[in-house]
Amino acid sequence: MQLPDGAAALRAQIVAVGTELVTGDTVDTNSAWLAGRLTDLGIDVRGHATVGDHEHELLTVLRAATTGSDVVVVTGGLGPTPDDLTRFAVARLAGVALERRPALVDDIRAYFADRGREMAETNLVQADLPAGAQVIDPVGTAPGFVLRVAGVLLVCLPGVPAEMRQMTERGVVPLLRRHGGLSATVRRTVRTAGIAESTVAERCAELFARLSRTNNTQLAFYSSRGETRVRVTARARDEPAAHALTDPIVAEVVQLLGAAVVGLDDEGVESVIARQLQQRGWTLAVAESITGGGVGARLVSVPGASEWFAGGVIAYATASKPTLAGVPERVLAEHGPVSEETAAALATGVRDRLDADAALAVVGVAGPTTQGRRRVGTVCPAVALPADVVRTRTVRLSPRSRQDLQQFSASVALDYLRRCLAAVQGG
Amino acid sequence: MQLPDGAAALRAQIVAVGTELVTGDTVDTNSAWLAGRLTDLGIDVRGHATVGDHEHELLTVLRAATTGSDVVVVTGGLGPTPDDLTRFAVARLAGVALERRPALVDDIRAYFADRGREMAETNLVQADLPAGAQVIDPVGTAPGFVLRVAGVLLVCLPGVPAEMRQMTERGVVPLLRRHGGLSATVRRTVRTAGIAESTVAERCAELFARLSRTNNTQLAFYSSRGETRVRVTARARDEPAAHALTDPIVAEVVQLLGAAVVGLDDEGVESVIARQLQQRGWTLAVAESITGGGVGARLVSVPGASEWFAGGVIAYATASKPTLAGVPERVLAEHGPVSEETAAALATGVRDRLDADAALAVVGVAGPTTQGRRRVGTVCPAVALPADVVRTRTVRLSPRSRQDLQQFSASVALDYLRRCLAAVQGG
Repeated sequence: MQLPDGAAALRAQIVAVGTELVTGDTVDTNSAWLAGRLTDLGIDVRGHATVGDHEHELLTVLRAATTGSDVVVVTGGLGPTPDDLTRFAVARLAGVALERRPALVDDIRAYFADRGREMAETNLVQADLPAGAQVIDPVGTAPGFVLRVAGVLLVCLPGVPAEMRQMTERGVVPLLRRHGGLSATVRRTVRTAGIAESTVAERCAELFARLSRTNNTQLAFYSSRGETRVRVTARARDEPAAHALTDPIVAEVVQLLGAAVVGLDDEGVESVIARQLQQRGWTLAVAESITGGGVGARLVSVPGASEWFAGGVIAYATASKPTLAGVPERVLAEHGPVSEETAAALATGVRDRLDADAALAVVGVAGPTTQGRRRVGTVCPAVALPADVVRTRTVRLSPRSRQDLQQFSASVALDYLRRCLAAVQGG
Repeated sequence: MQLPDGAAALRAQIVAVGTELVTGDTVDTNSAWLAGRLTDLGIDVRGHATVGDHEHELLTVLRAATTGSDVVVVTGGLGPTPDDLTRFAVARLAGVALERRPALVDDIRAYFADRGREMAETNLVQADLPAGAQVIDPVGTAPGFVLRVAGVLLVCLPGVPAEMRQMTERGVVPLLRRHGGLSATVRRTVRTAGIAESTVAERCAELFARLSRTNNTQLAFYSSRGETRVRVTARARDEPAAHALTDPIVAEVVQLLGAAVVGLDDEGVESVIARQLQQRGWTLAVAESITGGGVGARLVSVPGASEWFAGGVIAYATASKPTLAGVPERVLAEHGPVSEETAAALATGVRDRLDADAALAVVGVAGPTTQGRRRVGTVCPAVALPADVVRTRTVRLSPRSRQDLQQFSASVALDYLRRCLAAVQGG
């Protein structure tokens, strides 16, 4: 692909190593993440390959991947067990020996010593790198490395997603930037909730068509777990130029989608709620039934949650609703545990017990069986605000697995809270 | 791989086509699903490849995939748009022309007519198949096909996951069964927690080496989110024969790993706890700080949780610990919120408030900053049992992201509860 200034983009291949991936026991998410990150840097990812823990086949795949590429990134097969073969295959590919690095041996010993854990000697194989390789510092115990093989930059990273991602950001991205020859691709995301993917696509149809006629900007739609994301992509000579292309498009998408917009890029509904509460100086409590704690778990994932999250109750069994949140027995008897009335009583009850400013409650039927007259997939969120303002709704989710319904219910509840807080703040 | 009866397993490669996959905009779940399905049929999946919507590169990947394979399954690139190129690449690979199938034209027209939708003429390209190809009936509008190319069975399916799966079950699996030469592969999993992957590997080292010398049984280790799984795979002429091979190996692994074994196959720690509680007729309450509800969310994912899960409290803010679970102010002042003493007080407090038989509490430091003298990654679970038996521990998790620490803490707490319940039941 030619860039406006005539520089050719670097070509990359991604290789995932692991029999568990080849047999389908584990879905490979590393390759997609890496591909996105390399694409962001203006690198032209040409393909991915997945291969099992067999040295000969790994060598064959590495040979094919390096052919015609500038960069090859390999994940997996760097651990301490006998089926971790990447270091051996790379050494053979490069025609060099493995050598044990004393500094890495010390690191690995220190890692275990720090945790007061016994170290199996087999861990030290992780200190063996192909001669000439440059270390990428480990996040866990497995270091990565970079080696130039016949002009190709071969990057090897462990397969544990969290380690791989951190090591990419700290060790690989800076190296690729120094390597030069990069253009810039900027990808922005407009995140929505509570709106169908087809409705999103319909509202953006004219914009989509307009961008399709350009060769450096693009719109795409992705949907998962009740959230539809609109992806805006632009490619230019450098990052400021690419941002200058995406900024007005993002603004246009936000306008087209209105109240359904949750946030941009990595800003999930939890972060938006954190911001909404902090702007008001409010604290929040939760009362969960169907989600069993899933709403709270998502809220505390935001750093600094202790500044605004008071806590809450998991009022799962019907009997726990009066005990934990003071839901009147009369409300339960009249309306049943899955009702807007019970959700409202939970919300006001937990708000008052924890002396919080606002509260979110959610009840529902996760199945496998119906609850009274309420069908599987019925979800009622309730939001209690100061001055005894309480808002409730009923949402009917389409049938899916129990666990999916529980996770969707948490998303529905959080989006409802976001919308209620936005309405207050707008008023 | 030779089978005992001398029949070689079919070797397969999987190819996913689509630029959205190569750039990481979409995670490919088709390949893992197909790989699992083929593995179950005793087919030896050797690798996967992902390639963009470029005819020349697709052809290169198809050539490599067919080399040394008996079966190649391709997903994607069969739709009506100009970037759907699979049919062209396959026709070139086979050296045959595309021919329009009148029956498929009728089907496509009928599909749109049935839904009262106008049909764009471009849709008819989906009726063009390589000469000699056998149709796999469509679920949507895109038919699949099978073509024998130089002795290799080349199966092409659309990329929409739901269509691909149905067409595989209805059109591809029966064809592979008729093709014969299938064997049975049985895969069993021994799940562990609270033990390092390297320790698991070391304890199983002799068994691993022994199985490596067979050609029909195998051991592998996988680790994620604090749980290490040992996978036992055996291949034989039929399923009972494969089970006869795996059963004694699974028993041996369970014996080697002892108390670290959580369960087998799909049985996670939540299901084991459910069973342990139900055997005793006990109910459980939880009190969560660091996990914010994540422990409860995992427990309620078990169908029928309402029979033994009473509910609990999310005692996140320090002030909520006395309010929600009656933790004495004195304990908080003396030991701080992250301590075994506070965890114990939370566990007994919530057990008594909810009149449950047992309770699990967990406190800890998720970061980004330390809490008093307690470092990020410090986690204290506590378990309260009947007759005022309380057990506590302190675990130091290695630094990782806040969200990972919260999820690990939930795993640590649940595994601690499992071990405490097992000890009671053994005593």
